[in-house]
Amino acid sequence: MAPRAGHAVNAPGRRVAQARLSINTVTLGNPPLLDALDAIAATGARKVGLWRETYDGMTARQAARAVADHGLQVSSLCRCVLSHDTHTMADSRRAVDDAHQLGAAVLVVLAGGLPPGSHDLAGARARVAEAFAELANVAGEAGVRLALEPLHPMFAASRSVVNTLRQALDIVEPFPGERAGVVLDTFNVWWDPELADQICRAGLGNKIAAVQIADWSRNHEHGPFLTRALPGDGIIDNLGIIAAADSAGYRGPIEVEIFNDDLWQQPPRRIAEKAMSSFFAALC
Amino acid sequence: MAPRAGHAVNAPGRRVAQARLSINTVTLGNPPLLDALDAIAATGARKVGLWRETYDGMTARQAARAVADHGLQVSSLCRCVLSHDTHTMADSRRAVDDAHQLGAAVLVVLAGGLPPGSHDLAGARARVAEAFAELANVAGEAGVRLALEPLHPMFAASRSVVNTLRQALDIVEPFPGERAGVVLDTFNVWWDPELADQICRAGLGNKIAAVQIADWSRNHEHGPFLTRALPGDGIIDNLGIIAAADSAGYRGPIEVEIFNDDLWQQPPRRIAEKAMSSFFAALC
Repeated sequence: MAPRAGHAVNAPGRRVAQARLSINTVTLGNPPLLDALDAIAATGARKVGLWRETYDGMTARQAARAVADHGLQVSSLCRCVLSHDTHTMADSRRAVDDAHQLGAAVLVVLAGGLPPGSHDLAGARARVAEAFAELANVAGEAGVRLALEPLHPMFAASRSVVNTLRQALDIVEPFPGERAGVVLDTFNVWWDPELADQICRAGLGNKIAAVQIADWSRNHEHGPFLTRALPGDGIIDNLGIIAAADSAGYRGPIEVEIFNDDLWQQPPRRIAEKAMSSFFAALC
Repeated sequence: MAPRAGHAVNAPGRRVAQARLSINTVTLGNPPLLDALDAIAATGARKVGLWRETYDGMTARQAARAVADHGLQVSSLCRCVLSHDTHTMADSRRAVDDAHQLGAAVLVVLAGGLPPGSHDLAGARARVAEAFAELANVAGEAGVRLALEPLHPMFAASRSVVNTLRQALDIVEPFPGERAGVVLDTFNVWWDPELADQICRAGLGNKIAAVQIADWSRNHEHGPFLTRALPGDGIIDNLGIIAAADSAGYRGPIEVEIFNDDLWQQPPRRIAEKAMSSFFAALC
């Protein structure tokens, strides 16, 4: 990634970087909410990326209280999956309501994969914009900002038919930036030949709604749930990509979000410490 | 993929399709050459995609004789990897010489992954065009047609920094189609939002040099060497993609190329039969 010059993360030093640090609960393997919050707050982080699974059995209001009691803010709530299916739409409404209750900066939205039995990728893609617009209406009423996340092309069949920043930006384009943007997750986008251009484009429209960092371990052959590693343990130029986002005007939180079977074997506090250390090593 | 109309594979029926069928030796797990050729010729195929590993211990001339004795032609020779490294360039020259001796329709070229320790993807990509031009000089003297293969973005770090048809076409653009084109491998390109446009672009310049088909099993989570399945066992619209290639003027061989740990447990003849059946089921 060029340019590396002028990256705001580094320039004012560790204090500014610390204010932007967020740790996503899935990095800890999504333990029960209080365990996750204890571990993340103990690192000095002031922000948390939250998965809905972590507060199962609580109301969102109770979860919001627990987050506040730990001195934390919710940088993102993961997640809702687009669909015209009635059940899924009802779930998306609950997700929007939760994001509102939690004061989440954004609600992360995934496009979903191919419908079962389908070979019609173009058709599935064509339906995403409409489903997103429907959700944006609901979110707009609740004052919740949506963040559509393109996933790496290896997840196109199973998880998201939106696989590039360009696609995601095409979909959120009709909405003002304060209502809808994209998630820039370095694991998902690092390979994209258009990455630099599309980050600029996103910045111009205030469309970078959330940033997540991870790393890509060099050899993918062992499967995706070991491929996603802590920043610094792989080949992604996280500093360069964050510098590009900053140059494009992004000043928000930077979440460490990892899915890694090996990491998940460790206690939450140990993982949170590693996530915090890897954040500073990668960006400062 | 649209359009499905007018696909030459289907229209004139099984006889025409059979004339285009090629089976790649790696589908059989690259057994010794004679075993591979016996198994492939027994299916009625008249073409074979050959990996250099299969004739280890033979000269290319001896391998060419064995291929001819089985009534087969070489649709592609796999493969050489681009690099400025002296050792690799010497190997590439041998690959070009082998392709000439074998009368291979194309020599498959991979860009290679990131250099060890490097985080500079843009830099690695910038060097590919120069290395390709160097190889094209060597190939041109030998009358060998090169086929640059973009690999799926999940292989960007380890195997190829060229990950889209657009990138590959940008690189082969300066050369006439009869000297250099691209490999359209459905497993590598099916996810690409630009696929239809770039197939058209490739066809206009006679730049579709080889076509390979496989399938993508829906759940990628078990790792890439089980993700690549026989045509029909996954979600790729192989018929639609082949129809697009045909509409763009491609009339050459269609290779079944699979890398699959489960498949490789079976005897070569059984695998070759399955490859042949899957080819007709997917395209006729």
